[in-house]
Amino acid sequence: MFFASDNSSGVHDEIMEAIQRANRGPAMSYGADDLTRRVEARFAEIFETDVDVLLLITGTAANALSIAGVTPPYGAVFCHGEAHIMVDECGASEFYTGGAKLIGIEGGNGRIAPQALRDTLAGFDPDNAHLPRPAALSLTQASEVGTLYRAEEIAALSEIAREHAMAVHMDGARFANALVALDVAPGDITWRAGVDILSFGATKNGAMGAEAIVVFSRARKDDLVYRRMRAGHQFSKSRFVAAQFDAYFTDDLWLKSARHANAMAALLGAGAGGVDGVRLGWPVEANEVFLVVPKTCYEALGKGGAVCHPWPGPGPAGEGAVGDDEILIRLVASFATTKADVDHFLAALRQAMTG
Amino acid sequence: MFFASDNSSGVHDEIMEAIQRANRGPAMSYGADDLTRRVEARFAEIFETDVDVLLLITGTAANALSIAGVTPPYGAVFCHGEAHIMVDECGASEFYTGGAKLIGIEGGNGRIAPQALRDTLAGFDPDNAHLPRPAALSLTQASEVGTLYRAEEIAALSEIAREHAMAVHMDGARFANALVALDVAPGDITWRAGVDILSFGATKNGAMGAEAIVVFSRARKDDLVYRRMRAGHQFSKSRFVAAQFDAYFTDDLWLKSARHANAMAALLGAGAGGVDGVRLGWPVEANEVFLVVPKTCYEALGKGGAVCHPWPGPGPAGEGAVGDDEILIRLVASFATTKADVDHFLAALRQAMTG
Amino acid sequence: MFFASDNSSGVHDEIMEAIQRANRGPAMSYGADDLTRRVEARFAEIFETDVDVLLLITGTAANALSIAGVTPPYGAVFCHGEAHIMVDECGASEFYTGGAKLIGIEGGNGRIAPQALRDTLAGFDPDNAHLPRPAALSLTQASEVGTLYRAEEIAALSEIAREHAMAVHMDGARFANALVALDVAPGDITWRAGVDILSFGATKNGAMGAEAIVVFSRARKDDLVYRRMRAGHQFSKSRFVAAQFDAYFTDDLWLKSARHANAMAALLGAGAGGVDGVRLGWPVEANEVFLVVPKTCYEALGKGGAVCHPWPGPGPAGEGAVGDDEILIRLVASFATTKADVDHFLAALRQAMTG
Amino acid sequence: MFFASDNSSGVHDEIMEAIQRANRGPAMSYGADDLTRRVEARFAEIFETDVDVLLLITGTAANALSIAGVTPPYGAVFCHGEAHIMVDECGASEFYTGGAKLIGIEGGNGRIAPQALRDTLAGFDPDNAHLPRPAALSLTQASEVGTLYRAEEIAALSEIAREHAMAVHMDGARFANALVALDVAPGDITWRAGVDILSFGATKNGAMGAEAIVVFSRARKDDLVYRRMRAGHQFSKSRFVAAQFDAYFTDDLWLKSARHANAMAALLGAGAGGVDGVRLGWPVEANEVFLVVPKTCYEALGKGGAVCHPWPGPGPAGEGAVGDDEILIRLVASFATTKADVDHFLAALRQAMTG
Repeated sequence: MFFASDNSSGVHDEIMEAIQRANRGPAMSYGADDLTRRVEARFAEIFETDVDVLLLITGTAANALSIAGVTPPYGAVFCHGEAHIMVDECGASEFYTGGAKLIGIEGGNGRIAPQALRDTLAGFDPDNAHLPRPAALSLTQASEVGTLYRAEEIAALSEIAREHAMAVHMDGARFANALVALDVAPGDITWRAGVDILSFGATKNGAMGAEAIVVFSRARKDDLVYRRMRAGHQFSKSRFVAAQFDAYFTDDLWLKSARHANAMAALLGAGAGGVDGVRLGWPVEANEVFLVVPKTCYEALGKGGAVCHPWPGPGPAGEGAVGDDEILIRLVASFATTKADVDHFLAALRQAMTG
Repeated sequence: MFFASDNSSGVHDEIMEAIQRANRGPAMSYGADDLTRRVEARFAEIFETDVDVLLLITGTAANALSIAGVTPPYGAVFCHGEAHIMVDECGASEFYTGGAKLIGIEGGNGRIAPQALRDTLAGFDPDNAHLPRPAALSLTQASEVGTLYRAEEIAALSEIAREHAMAVHMDGARFANALVALDVAPGDITWRAGVDILSFGATKNGAMGAEAIVVFSRARKDDLVYRRMRAGHQFSKSRFVAAQFDAYFTDDLWLKSARHANAMAALLGAGAGGVDGVRLGWPVEANEVFLVVPKTCYEALGKGGAVCHPWPGPGPAGEGAVGDDEILIRLVASFATTKADVDHFLAALRQAMTG
Repeated sequence: MFFASDNSSGVHDEIMEAIQRANRGPAMSYGADDLTRRVEARFAEIFETDVDVLLLITGTAANALSIAGVTPPYGAVFCHGEAHIMVDECGASEFYTGGAKLIGIEGGNGRIAPQALRDTLAGFDPDNAHLPRPAALSLTQASEVGTLYRAEEIAALSEIAREHAMAVHMDGARFANALVALDVAPGDITWRAGVDILSFGATKNGAMGAEAIVVFSRARKDDLVYRRMRAGHQFSKSRFVAAQFDAYFTDDLWLKSARHANAMAALLGAGAGGVDGVRLGWPVEANEVFLVVPKTCYEALGKGGAVCHPWPGPGPAGEGAVGDDEILIRLVASFATTKADVDHFLAALRQAMTG
Repeated sequence: MFFASDNSSGVHDEIMEAIQRANRGPAMSYGADDLTRRVEARFAEIFETDVDVLLLITGTAANALSIAGVTPPYGAVFCHGEAHIMVDECGASEFYTGGAKLIGIEGGNGRIAPQALRDTLAGFDPDNAHLPRPAALSLTQASEVGTLYRAEEIAALSEIAREHAMAVHMDGARFANALVALDVAPGDITWRAGVDILSFGATKNGAMGAEAIVVFSRARKDDLVYRRMRAGHQFSKSRFVAAQFDAYFTDDLWLKSARHANAMAALLGAGAGGVDGVRLGWPVEANEVFLVVPKTCYEALGKGGAVCHPWPGPGPAGEGAVGDDEILIRLVASFATTKADVDHFLAALRQAMTG
């Protein structure tokens, strides 16, 4: 009953085996090995366009380097008020950019609404250097609360960004989960919808530590390669990151794993939502489930062995708002979550609510 | 015949097995797992003193975070002119500190001589803010050219640092190789000799990607934990780094691996030094061998399948200086180097010199 | 009828004369001149305690250096959502700190309410490095909307800061205006109320360009001296900044100038508030007057020669909120504002409202 | 007998009068005043080409902002080993760029020799991100030791820079002194010779605090305007900087002042060089004179009331090298230096040598 985070799951067997297979004989280091090159090329096929790719190990590095690649030190980056880059990375984007400013936009369901973006941008003027200059829009897909941007929503936001000469970044730590839920092609929710640069995560979906920056709007690779090196994120034994992506893409492992995680979350959401006194914080669209439960219930769940955390962000607004005696908790399903885990949790939840 | 770098070797089997073993069930992420805590505690035993430990994945991160932990943005960091932090990390220390200045001190045999340090420091004055303020001394053990600082040499340099209110950092990317060559205790060439903070490397000695910052002069951990997080170097599935260290320390695997690498380098050095027309760049004290060979010989070696690189730094001074028709090459032995590799290389070298 | 900013006024005659007087013969540069030392010492008398002082030329530099002096790169700085450091300095504090995060706290009347500060801090935890670490509280006195913190309010906020191990910074760009309005001693609203570091402004109150960082919580001067130098804010012909302060403090010129500016603002506020259809945005407590007027009135005022600007921040909340056909404008009085200026403006305002 | 620095001189009377004249009535702040615009336009006439201009108050700010405008955080900046940006600005360029690396090139007479630049660049490779990427060449005119680059020398260095895709910056803190000594047009030793961006100093030549960044290679102004703002270098009462330049350019005051300073230095050099036991460190080409004198002579000069400083950099090489009993001192002449000052000094020098 471990639902604390998809980071808490280990490594998918096929990925672990690929890591072992890569451990044969010597190989050039710092990204000059054949496997790294092969994997980089694989991204172009998946996205159906030429791309530049930088392999990395952590998602925070992917986000912060991406943001720094499109934002000058005096730039403003617009993101959701609860975005990972805003509230979970200890100012990594500020560090990597040399002090750019993140501007949080609040919005229901974890998504930025086009009008809210327009309203916020109205306060900025590129000829007024007293304020930072709008430089980038960062979208999280799936969002921090497990909801999704449709392709046309991304396109609408990208269009606004373009009008203000801003680049569009996507934090895709859970990109696979969003992709399979939307049932679209990878290009549909990225470059075809105006995304310039993507943090493509695999770690939360069964890799050990494998992330990539995918650059659709080219001619930035050199800049990023230098930034990666001086950040200490050019992994020396690079083949072991490449091997993870190699397995991740083989036989659609990434899509299968994401579909499984989403299915488990759907089961969990449907089951929990049906328990009297429990309600969903937001619709379950990917692999995250948010529940509003009585505080007593959360305590009972913990005693019963369920591992999941309260969610620090503001909960749902309006009618669904979290009451004084209630708490908002997050459960995350992964490739490793089993139907038995879900059933156990639901049983524990029912017990906690009636007990 | 792959001697390009110890980074080119893969992962020691026992470490790879430990990684697999760690892949059982869920675990807390971001360093909150049991294995990480256990390993952190292990460092105190090894160094025979209380220490703070931060696990990392790359050596550049370990160096740059360590330097940033002891150097203000306006600080000066003194290191050897050929130090890794000076010429191989693309300004990582400058990035992490917010623009500190690295001052290279030249010195024979890859080591800083106490008098050279004193002479350089004489140009600085903490009351003169036109120049950066002396903040840290960084020593590389083993040095970039494979030579070693003895405990008393470290103590002498630390004493000078102390007189100038500077912290002492050690870049121990090849710490194990130095340790076994000197046949001392880990504490003897670190805290007992005045070292405040150590980049402790395991990657070059058989790990996949495992480095640690070991802090002897305490009360800096919180600062470093925050810096690590915002640099994107807090690995989420942290147990897989901890597992590497666990195996690394078990049954002295680290010492055995280092002894083997050093022995192979010694063989290589002794053999190559005996070839007519070939001479050693520097004494072989750890796992690196530098050879001065005719350029034609280097070409022949490459055609014969030997993989090793020219060394870009200034070669040995004085009588041993590299001639116009000569080239300085570096060979690095690792845990994976075999006696057969060495023999093959030596045969190829003799062939290249006579052919 | 120039009320755009107190920065738009020129230099007080007595200060200009002091600048000329300082122009006799050579003097040591970079702050080593006698006048600089004398002026630095004068601050201790004014504040009735030992202080460290750094003379500067711009208020943004004073704020950003002060913040950087008390905030690590991973720190969080809490300030009012409309604070100058937040919305007018193009991320200067982010630049100088190396990427710290400013957290805006909204509050009526331009002031931070203690409970709002507590609520915001509740979301931070020094043991959770995913979020930046609370490092500093910055208060603006007088506030951006011309209101004042009383000594006991400052003390209450400082106490909360202290509980969270945060330093307290005061942006005193209009410190003199606040001081004479509150009729207290300089120490009463600074160090006696828990302020650690003060940006002491003279430029808006009649100097040409003269600001000071006043450090109450000592032992930070060296750090700031280095930071000032590398920021290019150590003025070489330093005597000409010192001369401004010398005149500023002579015969209480600073207090007289501030009293005059406040009196003119009071007249303006009283007069404008009495015009039918015009209302004050906030109480007039120092030298700034905010008026809510019909948009048509603002246009008429402009045509009539009044120079003043719309205020971009959110206006007053609740009943006094700015309507769709209305606009919020700011008028600032200075040492140079005359009663005739005020009378002209009020006449123009009445005309604009009836015309 | 005050020869410590041209910064030690006060303000030229005509400039001081212009400052006073500017003090009439209100004016828009932060560079939006008419005088600032007029002065900015004046630069285009002087340089006979379209330029972007940013007015500033300190030379360190002009240098560091210029460097940051043409250098990414991972860039390498090549300058003379004794350049002001290297040894006198406390790492300002490192701070403003976000950690770029300054690479000092040694060279006789304070100038970079083309071959030395080529040799240094040979160690860099834009495809090797382990080293910073060559980004800018910075030339000091007049050099730190008072020598000059001829137009063709600048062009030759610029050509090398261009081959390596580097921008060319000129530190012109003493640009006027160089200009009149070379008897060329301002464009001849700047944009016509390949300079992209110039720190144009007036402070050392009689202004109170007036510097300008002159951008020949356009389309960078917006970037610099933002950087200036967040550095706190956008002076609020900007008319008082503009007024200084207005007077500086009126009736060729700047050229006359520089010619005078150079003439005084020439007298000083000729006189001192003729004193037995005294020799010139370098040829006197602008307004600086370097003398190698016995240490006892320097002490006697000090007792006799001469104010001048030992020069910390390495002295002349070869035959002229400073002996153990000798000291290298610098004397700087300014617009305010009189022939009587020179005569007094020479008399004191002769006395000290025979004393």
